[in-house]
Amino acid sequence: MKFEKPVAVTDIAALIGAELVGNSQLLATGINEIHKVTPGDISFVDFEKYYNASLNSAATIIIINKKVDVPEGKALLVLDDPFSAYVSLVKKFRPFEPASKSISDTAVIGEGTIIQPNVFIGNHVKVGRNCIIHPNVTIYDHCVIGDNVIIHAGTVLGADAFYFKKRAEREVIYDKLESCGRVIIEDYVEIGAGCTIDKGVSGDTIIGQGTKLDNMIHIGHGTVVGRNCLIAAQVGIAGKAKIEDNVILWGQVGVNKDLTIGKGAVVLAQSGVPSSLEGGKVYFGYPAEDARAKRKEIAWIKRIPEIWEKVKDLGK
Amino acid sequence: MKFEKPVAVTDIAALIGAELVGNSQLLATGINEIHKVTPGDISFVDFEKYYNASLNSAATIIIINKKVDVPEGKALLVLDDPFSAYVSLVKKFRPFEPASKSISDTAVIGEGTIIQPNVFIGNHVKVGRNCIIHPNVTIYDHCVIGDNVIIHAGTVLGADAFYFKKRAEREVIYDKLESCGRVIIEDYVEIGAGCTIDKGVSGDTIIGQGTKLDNMIHIGHGTVVGRNCLIAAQVGIAGKAKIEDNVILWGQVGVNKDLTIGKGAVVLAQSGVPSSLEGGKVYFGYPAEDARAKRKEIAWIKRIPEIWEKVKDLGK
Amino acid sequence: MKFEKPVAVTDIAALIGAELVGNSQLLATGINEIHKVTPGDISFVDFEKYYNASLNSAATIIIINKKVDVPEGKALLVLDDPFSAYVSLVKKFRPFEPASKSISDTAVIGEGTIIQPNVFIGNHVKVGRNCIIHPNVTIYDHCVIGDNVIIHAGTVLGADAFYFKKRAEREVIYDKLESCGRVIIEDYVEIGAGCTIDKGVSGDTIIGQGTKLDNMIHIGHGTVVGRNCLIAAQVGIAGKAKIEDNVILWGQVGVNKDLTIGKGAVVLAQSGVPSSLEGGKVYFGYPAEDARAKRKEIAWIKRIPEIWEKVKDLGK
Repeated sequence: MKFEKPVAVTDIAALIGAELVGNSQLLATGINEIHKVTPGDISFVDFEKYYNASLNSAATIIIINKKVDVPEGKALLVLDDPFSAYVSLVKKFRPFEPASKSISDTAVIGEGTIIQPNVFIGNHVKVGRNCIIHPNVTIYDHCVIGDNVIIHAGTVLGADAFYFKKRAEREVIYDKLESCGRVIIEDYVEIGAGCTIDKGVSGDTIIGQGTKLDNMIHIGHGTVVGRNCLIAAQVGIAGKAKIEDNVILWGQVGVNKDLTIGKGAVVLAQSGVPSSLEGGKVYFGYPAEDARAKRKEIAWIKRIPEIWEKVKDLGK
Repeated sequence: MKFEKPVAVTDIAALIGAELVGNSQLLATGINEIHKVTPGDISFVDFEKYYNASLNSAATIIIINKKVDVPEGKALLVLDDPFSAYVSLVKKFRPFEPASKSISDTAVIGEGTIIQPNVFIGNHVKVGRNCIIHPNVTIYDHCVIGDNVIIHAGTVLGADAFYFKKRAEREVIYDKLESCGRVIIEDYVEIGAGCTIDKGVSGDTIIGQGTKLDNMIHIGHGTVVGRNCLIAAQVGIAGKAKIEDNVILWGQVGVNKDLTIGKGAVVLAQSGVPSSLEGGKVYFGYPAEDARAKRKEIAWIKRIPEIWEKVKDLGK
Repeated sequence: MKFEKPVAVTDIAALIGAELVGNSQLLATGINEIHKVTPGDISFVDFEKYYNASLNSAATIIIINKKVDVPEGKALLVLDDPFSAYVSLVKKFRPFEPASKSISDTAVIGEGTIIQPNVFIGNHVKVGRNCIIHPNVTIYDHCVIGDNVIIHAGTVLGADAFYFKKRAEREVIYDKLESCGRVIIEDYVEIGAGCTIDKGVSGDTIIGQGTKLDNMIHIGHGTVVGRNCLIAAQVGIAGKAKIEDNVILWGQVGVNKDLTIGKGAVVLAQSGVPSSLEGGKVYFGYPAEDARAKRKEIAWIKRIPEIWEKVKDLGK
């Protein structure tokens, strides 16, 4: 996320009680987890093995748990628990604002858009023109919805990322990484009933123009779905996946995090996608492979008894 | 769907700007996509390979993109884009009516029925007697619910069919087929929490008397589920499937569109059903097959290393 | 469930019209199905093969369809249809209380807890301190929620158990076992959007302290999830399962009823768990097995054509 206006790094240091090392004149323009950093961002690192990646990333200000050499022009904020410091900054700059009504006064709703009863629209939400938002939909704070979008009943946009740091030494071991990303729904998207699309941890979860989702689809934090995709019911896509344009996922497909499904790929029903897939092909099964090869594999399995008989005969 | 009263075919031609060929005295009594047509219906066809099927169907009035020979007693409405003309008729005769309140004044609720808070009941909905509709349920316009039905919280009845025409030449390639069918829930049905049952494209999605659905079940457009079926949590059934009486589907089963599962069939958990299944048997796996045969197959797979050892020995 | 105050067994007998055999001085302190009985409980049995289990259980008062020898200190309530008698007691002592408003006056909400708009909170619900209940959540009567709990939008806690008795001789063959159990959510639990957690038939469904659930997870009646578990999106767990502490279930996993997943077990995405799993191991596939063994199995399947070639060569 980006701040509304830049904040002096000295103010950030004071807020989280960190020792400032390096360029103390810097202005922070946003806050992002490591996968989403851009220049001006504050990020954090708390494992030594990720120090280099973090120090060499686009991030300008790094919250870190060891005083190391500062890269040229950057600043370190040194303290014991960078994760908690990062979370406290998220809470400070993107605080949870409890709602006083079902449709926030700070939400902007475009002309020609119909909001059905029992819908919740949170703070700072933007909904475009000529949309239909069906009953009992929930749109969390900061979501952005384009023009000519249809969202069916019961769908939830912008719930928190499912992202925790393990603290094995504590009684409650999972420590929540507060999310400050958004959900962005582009023009002409239709989302079925009972879907859930989570906000990004610090970046955006995006559903591209013209993409159509059936019912009960789950899309994890920071996943980017391209244009003109077709996603059938009960598909689940984990966080930070990239689904390129014109992809078709049939019913109950599961897609792992941090991977890419290439343009125009088709994944048949109930398949599981553990790693990236090239575009332009049809896939099936777990792990999802070329559908024809997979069908042959199924046929081969049925021939095992015949092979065994042949082997027994040869043994005689 | 059927019209409230018949409409002259000449009026239909004028509405959509089509050339009328054939019997101009006809009255249209309804509008249906090709799989659901009955006499009196208007239907449409836009692929030459489906012309014969459409012209020989029960449909009385066919919207078509070529002037062909008219079957005896029928009428053709000729224009360039039959799909868009059909959609415009659906919008005309079954317009979306935005709600002004959570429970429409045109809804009819039977005696003894309890509607819990935060429920949405749309226009022209009928709910029978002695039902319980739990909180945050959404019932779209025109749904029909019998007596002694229980619907648990968060369930959505009557969202739009997931049905699009591909227009590869456009920027937004999926063109929505507007649905005008209904959802019909018969007596003594219980539907769990968080289910979604879509309306038919032009016919009805039906859940038969005494059938019980667990939570988070998706049922696609136009699917007909028989009486006394048992469907466990997270099952997904695609559009236009026929599930006969006394079928049992266990958890997370996926069922393809346009197929029949015969009376009394049992499909074990997580199975996938790509094509029709005979009644009275137990099925398992993907593709769902006789459960005992499938278990044997799993056992054979475990024997492959043993077979290989034997083959290696023979080779020596 | 336990009664608010003990009830004379003679009153119970009169209520259900049963013949009382055995100790007529007893006080009933609760009502439970056979898997959950404790001393003082009323339970029921209607199959001769379960008579011994029921008579020798902790239950003090047994509703039964045959006059048999009464165990020392117990009482039998004899009538033709014990199931219906049991259900009538549930309805008497835990009646459905229709709501007159979205948040019941009998609900107790702790300090610092934020309830967002469009939430339903039923009668006798307890919500602890510093919780956030997001929009369109439904919490049925009698649920108990601890401190520092987050529940995301559209989630449903406490819907009825999916539990029916088959009455093959009737037109509507599935007869509902009314549930009187509860859902208990312990401290520091986070539940994602669109989840459904059913109440127990007579005992409690429990989510243990610090456990984190992603979106669209279904948890069946009476299931007990331990502390610090991590459950990814679209997982389904059937009724009366026991998930021990620190278990991780990845996306779309399905878990059967009446089993135990041992402490610290990890079940990889899309796996199916038909029976109990030992703790401390990683599992995969259907049926879920040691993940490394399963991966080898997948590799062996790919070698079948090679084995077949070798067999053919040997045959020459």
